Amino acid sequence: MRELDFIEWIRSQGGIDSAVVPVGPGDDCAVVKLGGEEILVTADQVLDGVHFVLAEHGPEAVGRKAMARGLSDAAAMAAMPLGAVATIAMPKDLARDEAEAIYRGLRSLADEFDCPVVGGDVGVYAGPLAVTVTVFARPGGVKPVLRSGAEVNDAICTTGSFGGAWRSRRHLQFIPRIREARMLAARCELHAMIDVSDGLSRDLGHICRASGVGAEIVADDVPVHPGEALEAALGDGEDYELLFTLSAEQAAELVGNQPLDVPIARVGTILADEALIIVDGSGSRRPLEAHGWEHETQ
Amino acid sequence: MRELDFIEWIRSQGGIDSAVVPVGPGDDCAVVKLGGEEILVTADQVLDGVHFVLAEHGPEAVGRKAMARGLSDAAAMAAMPLGAVATIAMPKDLARDEAEAIYRGLRSLADEFDCPVVGGDVGVYAGPLAVTVTVFARPGGVKPVLRSGAEVNDAICTTGSFGGAWRSRRHLQFIPRIREARMLAARCELHAMIDVSDGLSRDLGHICRASGVGAEIVADDVPVHPGEALEAALGDGEDYELLFTLSAEQAAELVGNQPLDVPIARVGTILADEALIIVDGSGSRRPLEAHGWEHETQ
Repeated sequence: MRELDFIEWIRSQGGIDSAVVPVGPGDDCAVVKLGGEEILVTADQVLDGVHFVLAEHGPEAVGRKAMARGLSDAAAMAAMPLGAVATIAMPKDLARDEAEAIYRGLRSLADEFDCPVVGGDVGVYAGPLAVTVTVFARPGGVKPVLRSGAEVNDAICTTGSFGGAWRSRRHLQFIPRIREARMLAARCELHAMIDVSDGLSRDLGHICRASGVGAEIVADDVPVHPGEALEAALGDGEDYELLFTLSAEQAAELVGNQPLDVPIARVGTILADEALIIVDGSGSRRPLEAHGWEHETQ
Repeated sequence: MRELDFIEWIRSQGGIDSAVVPVGPGDDCAVVKLGGEEILVTADQVLDGVHFVLAEHGPEAVGRKAMARGLSDAAAMAAMPLGAVATIAMPKDLARDEAEAIYRGLRSLADEFDCPVVGGDVGVYAGPLAVTVTVFARPGGVKPVLRSGAEVNDAICTTGSFGGAWRSRRHLQFIPRIREARMLAARCELHAMIDVSDGLSRDLGHICRASGVGAEIVADDVPVHPGEALEAALGDGEDYELLFTLSAEQAAELVGNQPLDVPIARVGTILADEALIIVDGSGSRRPLEAHGWEHETQ
């Protein structure tokens, strides 16, 4: 079973009334209307042996990562977290202090981002640890930034740097870019945004496919994490940095003034032709393979 | 690890601002304020070997049950479903058509109750099938009915009948009592309500503990499912019927007029003394053990 194919199939099933659900499956969050308000909702799971290794990483890091991924999806829409619910499927031999550590991990980030854990469910079964977090958020005065809004000639920008997040355990320690996304959305007109969980090339592919456009990445402009290679930066995933598009003028202003605590880089340009291209220092162009993190292969 | 002890511990952790979250962990749904609106949220998981047996029950029944449990929690607050998100943790050997069947099961009930599946997450791992559903709902003109509102001398009423739900597979086929709860709440002033997942005696215990009261059940008045024994009706769980309290006058009106498609019975009375008692036909009183479905023991 290929996860991504099945997810595509689910998205094709329809049955969503866009008057009630302006944004359905296929973006970082769904958007649902409730009276005069809109709420954003995202559900994510972390599974032992796929998204973490309990014996190696420990239970508190697992809880923290589960919450961080949910918050990162809210960041990808430039939304303000409102609350979360969590479920924990616990192996029979999990000790009580390990269960408490999972919860402490969830709460550590929930408290930092003012996102109370308002409910959930706990079960014990003959299986590996699995933690699911659903975050709901509000637009908070910012129109949700979708994957589908990229425009031809947009600049493609990133926060932070990429590559080796799993090896270096940054996938357990990253700070969801909620504050950064809010500041960017307040300062600029963001056309499209995603958080980079699957890998820079693959997540850029998600934006391009949703927007019906292509992209050109300049190899020398990709912010490679210290000690990592370009290929790792393009493919590894699990960085949870922001990848967004906006006008070239606004991108130049951001890159020139660096208004965030984390570096902003322009890495490329949106093209009309629906292909992903990478240009190296000698000017040679090659297809950018949308390779990267597909969890079933772990 | 005892699930219920751990859940109690989580509830004791605090950190919830009641101005934003009027109802936090510990009821069937949480209630969160969003602008001028309130949303209700509930998260539930079903785990292979605990809440279902995949090899025996099949994937479509699993998806259906996962959604039904979430909707049943919304019913327990008399809320109107607004949407759901689902995560599926799939064993590596799950076939594509089985994955599609899980989704069809989810959708079958989601469509029936106008509760679109707006997003979610799919993962493949070396573990048993686990499906998580988060349902969010709106009060829809009815104040959410909590577990904590039972008053001394309230009548205790139920919908439907109890016992043997697992053996007879009714736990895979039940209809969440959304419509019934809405009709009851429109017609009466419901003081407290819960859906009976853990067992009649145990879920009555949840209401009593949350309300700081006790209860007396009349054995001959418990609606026992045909072919089942009283003990099964009191302890088995997984019936997903409604258990609610209201004034004796309004209960008499309901029982007399039977306004629902499903029978309403009065089974007992709320008492000031914080104990659960069962009275048999000879008038003898004994403690009602809050036994029932605790999933870790499966």
